[in-house]
Parts: sequence; structure tokens; C-alpha cells
Amino acid sequence: MSAPQPLTDLSTDDLAAFLAAQQAAYADLVASGLKLDLTRGKPASAQLDLADGLLGLPTGVVDAHGVDTRNYGGLEGIREIREMFAELLWVETEQVVAGGNSSLVMMREVLTDLMLKGGVDSERPWSAEEKVTFICPVPGYDRHFTLLEWFGIDTVTVPMNEDGPDTAAVAALVANDPSIKGIWIVPTYANPTGSVVTLEVAERLASMPTAAPDFKILWDNAYAFHHLTEDEAKSADILSLASAAGHPHRPIMFASTSKITYAGAGVAFLAGSVDTVRWYLGHLGKGAIGPDKLNQLRHAQFFGSPQGVRDHMVRQRAIIAPKFDEVDAILTRRLGGLGVATWTKPTGGYFVSVDVLDGLAARVVALAKEAGIVLTPAGASFPKGDDPRDRNVRLAPTFPELAEVTAATEGFATCVLLAAAEKLAG
Amino acid sequence: MSAPQPLTDLSTDDLAAFLAAQQAAYADLVASGLKLDLTRGKPASAQLDLADGLLGLPTGVVDAHGVDTRNYGGLEGIREIREMFAELLWVETEQVVAGGNSSLVMMREVLTDLMLKGGVDSERPWSAEEKVTFICPVPGYDRHFTLLEWFGIDTVTVPMNEDGPDTAAVAALVANDPSIKGIWIVPTYANPTGSVVTLEVAERLASMPTAAPDFKILWDNAYAFHHLTEDEAKSADILSLASAAGHPHRPIMFASTSKITYAGAGVAFLAGSVDTVRWYLGHLGKGAIGPDKLNQLRHAQFFGSPQGVRDHMVRQRAIIAPKFDEVDAILTRRLGGLGVATWTKPTGGYFVSVDVLDGLAARVVALAKEAGIVLTPAGASFPKGDDPRDRNVRLAPTFPELAEVTAATEGFATCVLLAAAEKLAG
Repeated sequence: MSAPQPLTDLSTDDLAAFLAAQQAAYADLVASGLKLDLTRGKPASAQLDLADGLLGLPTGVVDAHGVDTRNYGGLEGIREIREMFAELLWVETEQVVAGGNSSLVMMREVLTDLMLKGGVDSERPWSAEEKVTFICPVPGYDRHFTLLEWFGIDTVTVPMNEDGPDTAAVAALVANDPSIKGIWIVPTYANPTGSVVTLEVAERLASMPTAAPDFKILWDNAYAFHHLTEDEAKSADILSLASAAGHPHRPIMFASTSKITYAGAGVAFLAGSVDTVRWYLGHLGKGAIGPDKLNQLRHAQFFGSPQGVRDHMVRQRAIIAPKFDEVDAILTRRLGGLGVATWTKPTGGYFVSVDVLDGLAARVVALAKEAGIVLTPAGASFPKGDDPRDRNVRLAPTFPELAEVTAATEGFATCVLLAAAEKLAG
Repeated sequence: MSAPQPLTDLSTDDLAAFLAAQQAAYADLVASGLKLDLTRGKPASAQLDLADGLLGLPTGVVDAHGVDTRNYGGLEGIREIREMFAELLWVETEQVVAGGNSSLVMMREVLTDLMLKGGVDSERPWSAEEKVTFICPVPGYDRHFTLLEWFGIDTVTVPMNEDGPDTAAVAALVANDPSIKGIWIVPTYANPTGSVVTLEVAERLASMPTAAPDFKILWDNAYAFHHLTEDEAKSADILSLASAAGHPHRPIMFASTSKITYAGAGVAFLAGSVDTVRWYLGHLGKGAIGPDKLNQLRHAQFFGSPQGVRDHMVRQRAIIAPKFDEVDAILTRRLGGLGVATWTKPTGGYFVSVDVLDGLAARVVALAKEAGIVLTPAGASFPKGDDPRDRNVRLAPTFPELAEVTAATEGFATCVLLAAAEKLAG
């Protein structure tokens, strides 16, 4: 069998034949009546089952420091879960707050505080500024962008490269414009590219001069421990880097057990400088008495130690890595060498990011929908849903069963081929 | 034994003798080296123990509608807990959202949304108004006032009477001033007075004309089921009353199981018109994926039915009613007839509200502190901590053991007597 030829190399006749073949394949796909969903980064039931030991916990209700976790109080979370995740996130216990079931909620709280009160190092509340702009590496996480939009914060994009955001572009933006107040970063196995921010990139972000004195790196380490291979990425120690560079309050880190234990009933974390933690808790305490400490104790007992978390993630990997392998195998077999798409082969995280030919992402998603395969809306990984090249499609293979991943990815490949053939023959 | 005489009726000599006796009693009190706390409305361990059945739940992880409660989603909460509390709160299921572990957090979310976006019926975000003012019935709940202060919302007070806020005062305030945007109300067994808003008062509040088209009643029904006697108060059906009066979006109701099951690990609720619920969820969804549904399922299974909640509260009452009886008995025995204090005898809730002689609350609290009895700071039940008559002291007898309640209340009475004698003899 000869190597596949790029479609652009095909003769007009061959391309017409190719198009006809894809149309037939697509008709078959539609006729097969699939009902599949590759949209959201949700754990599969089998992954959740791994944490069902939680259901019999906690044993006892008092934490290691004598606190009755059933009662009010303890705004910063119980000490033992903070210690455990401090070690995992390479920070000090005093730099960590353990919260409720959602790091996204903590992000909204932080943005609320920044807008209404200003940060540790702000001259005034951000809402009192004429304009506030955030840098968004793209493709990125749609909920980050939605949050900004809700707060009326403007966005400017930079490319997300394999080693993290394009630091030259970032540095140029922040150097002279004081309205640029922050950047979203998913440092480890980014959503959706799987990129890992390198030490060098992290160093540059931590140390770069910014016109805004209160520039913030919102460091959403949602996938810190979510390895898909034995080559486990280590997140750069952004708090130490920023502190060493003289900008200790620049980064605010977020993490959670949502994709470690239960997506809806885990524990979320915030970390930052001690001043940042005091700032956050000071505002939080105006409208909260304490998180669900009992669930924190439940988690602390379930894991037992930081190593318990790492061991748990190995079991997670055994369930989801085959799904990612399947996606890559199908895309390689069906699309490889044809010049119709590129895609990531992530070593961690929850997503595969596919770039189809310019202008075809919306078409591919529409074709897939018609065939019963729901994909994340085209453009979702860009602020305001606007992918300027209309080429990025995010695949989320964790939630469906492996057989469904197979069928959905095969169907997706058919849609990509049909859309490309339409375009090139058109 | 003769009936006690008001201190003001005593001769100068008798008063001097009385003062000397109280000084001696207070010296003994200080010498006894107490270490007691009557400050916060926290459940006692024995109350929390009543809910320890939660620790073995849920049985299974899927709710009655087939939702895997471990995973993401379900912003409005699981159906069965919403149904259960809809019945308890006399509203429709569609009018109820089940959230995380804190109704206070939901109140902050609502105020954030009102400030940044405006309500269902607002012309603009409240933050775009020149001024926003809330009516605060006093004495009231300190955390309500703290929240307002955090948001930069002004306050104006009205008296909290036995039947609820002084509606004539409220109606006069709202009639002509469009900057008056809302009122806090704890309708059932109010903090700290124990007042219950009557149907008449609720009707007036629901129907009164307001200059602001988007006036809000924040109806914090924290103690809806927290009866101390068999004479169980029924909360007025504020949503129906407001709807009938043509102001369906005026009330937003809050409740929680914090003082039913676990103070730190319960389930909180918000209720309002269907439009209000849609408004709240619309904003919430910009920065949240869903509450801890597993804990909601745990609670639904634990209670079994709305009646299960009511039955549970009877068991709560058996634990705390004796503490309230003890406070009243001691205050009656020690202070009755002396004209030095009045106090509430609540039929529900968590507090006893004491009014000492004008100008003495801070002195009483200071004396108590010196004697090792921590009381809620004087003024705490007023906005900005400012009790204009410096006379209100809140006692919270639920958390300490009965013997501690006895000792603390006896000590408190000694402080009240000493302060009064000082004043009258001075």
C-alpha cells in the first residue's frame, strides 16, 4: 500500500472521485443513526467508580487537629487536605486554601474581588479602571472566556504553543499597556492543546515587566496530575518563580479533585502568596463561613497521602489512555498524510485539539451533528466563540465508552474528509 | 419572699449596698476562672450527632431521575431534594434551586448579580445607580450587614417588632426613594429577636408600592423549621403573596440544612419566581458547573420525605429547648422585676435577644469578657456594629453544654446587675 497523498496533489478527476467516495461514506454514516457525544471533559463512570471508597468515609468526623468537620468555620479548609495538596502543588501549606467542589467558583470569586476591590497590589478596584483586558492563549478553555465576558473584561489572544503561551507576544502586550491586567494559563496538559508550560516559559511569565502593577497570572492547574503516559510532566513552580522575580502576588493557582475523584463532589484549591491567601480569605469571609470540611476529611482519608493521589491517577490513566490512543490511531489511519488536518497527541489532560483546513471547523461540526455526533461548537476554544481561522475542533474522549470513542472518531474523520473534499473540489 | 423591686425605686443607701453586693459577686465570678462562649449560633455536637446517619449515605450514587450525582452538571440541584424542600417551603419545585453548603454564599451571589447585572426587573445594574440602600430591621443578623458593607450598599434601619419589621416605617421609606432597593428579613424566629413575620406583615411587604421597580425582599428563612415549642410558627408564603400583589420577582428566599443536619456540610436553597430562578442560574452558570449533588442525594436519602425533616427537627428541639428554658429561668430569677433588662423568650431559632439599660451593652460585654464569658460584641446586631442605644446583647445558647449555659447565663446576669448598679449609683 502506497503512502497517502495530500489531497491538494490529486488531479481534478481523482479529487471528484474522492469527494464522491466521501459523500457515500457520509451518507452511510448518517444512515447508521449514531447518537454520540464528544463534547465535554467529563470523567467516565468507570473513572468515578475508582473513587467510590469515598462513599464509606469519613471514618469519624474530627480532623487530625481536633476540628469537628461537621460544624461551621475553618474558612481556609482543614489542615490535612491543605498539607496534602500543598506538597502535590509544590507550595507551602500557608499558601493553600481548600474550598468547595469547584475551582471555577473560586476563579469567579477571585475575579469578583479583583473587580470590586482590587488585588493585593492594585491601586484601585479593577471596575474603577477605564478598561481591563485579559490575555487569552488560544485555543483555550471556553469557561475561562465566558467568565471574562460576564465581568465585562476585554480579551486579547496570543497563540498557545507546545511549550505554553507565546511569551514574546505576551511580553509585548503587557510591557506598555496598563489596562492589560492578567492572563489565563492552563499550565499542564492545557485545554484543549495538551501543551505543558515549560520552566523557561513560566520563568519569563513570572519575571516579565508589566505596565500594570497588579498583573495576575490565573494559573488553572486543572490537570496537574492527569498523565496519559509514563512521561509525567511536572508543573513549573510558578509561585516560587514569581516570588524570586519580585512579583510574589502575580500568580493565583487553582486546582481540584474534580477529575481525580468525583467531578461534582470533589475538593477545589486556591494557592498564592501568603498575602494573596489572606486577601482572598478576607473577602471570602464577608460572605461565607466555611467550606464543606467533612468532604475534605473524606478526601484526606481516601487518599491517605500525596502519594495516594499519584497512585490514584495511575488507575485513572489505565482507563482513559486507551481512548486517547484510539483517537490518535483512527485520525492517523484515516487522515494521516492527506494534508486535511493536524492534531495533538497529548501526554495528559482531557482533550485532543484538531485543526482542520481553514474555514472548515464549523462545517465539520455541522456535518457531525447531522450524523448524530455532538462535538464542542466550533470556535468554543476562542473568546466569544470566534475562531478567526475557523479551524479548531476540540475532541473530548474520556466520557464515552471505548467503542463509542471509536465510532465517534471514525465518524468525525469522515466529516473532516468530506468537508476537505468539498472545499478542494469546490 | 417579697417581689423584686425595680432598682430605680431603691434608696441611695440600698442602691449602694446593692452595688457593693454585685461588685462582690462579680469578683467571685472573675475568681472562678470561667472559660465560656455564648457567641455564635452553632449547633452543639449532640445536634450534629443526630445527622450522623449521613455518614453511611448515599446508598448508590444515581438519583431518582437517573442522574449520576458524582459527575458534573445539574446546576439547579437534584430534583428530589428540590421537591422535598419545595414542599417544606410552600413553593413549587421549579421555584427552588438546591446549592452547596451555604445559603450565605447564595446571598452573596445574588447581591453580586444584582450589583453587576441588575435583577430580573432592573433598568440597569445596581452598581450603575448613584446610590443603593438596604433596609435593615434591627436588631438583626450581623453577616447580612457585613455583606452589604462589602458591596458598598448603604443601610437604613427600622425596628424589628414581634410581628416582623415595622411595616409603616418600611412603607414610608420605599414609597418615594428609588435608591432603596431592598430589605433583609429573617421571617421565622429572627436572629436575634425570635420574631415571626405575621401574614399581615408579609402581605404588606409583598404589596407595598416601592419607588424602585426592582425592590427586593431577601427572605432568609434560616430557621423555618427550628421550633422550640409545640406552637410551631408557619412562615408566610411570601412568594405567593408577592405574586398575587403583582410583584412576583420581589422576594428571593434562602434556606439551608446547616442547622438541621451539619452546619458545615449541609445543603442550601434559593427560591423565587421562575424568572428569578432562571436569572440566578443564568448568572451562576457563567462561573459554576453544578453543586455537590452527591451530598444532596445523601440528604434526600437521610430525610426520606418532607416529614422526615420535620421529625428530625423534633429531635433537635429536645436537645436545645432545655438550654433556652434555662436561660429564661435564670434571667427571670436574677433580673426579673428589677427594671434592668428585657429579653425575648423565643419559640424557635437560635438566639435570645437581651436589651439592657441604654448605654450598658458594651459595658456588660466587657465585664463578661473579663470574667471569661465571651459574648457577641455589643452592637453586632446593628449595621456597622452601631447600636445607637448601646443596649442589645445577643445570647446564643445552643452550642455549649447545658451546664455551661447555666454558668454563662448566671455570669451574664451578674454582669448586667453590676453594670446597672454602677449606672444608677453613679
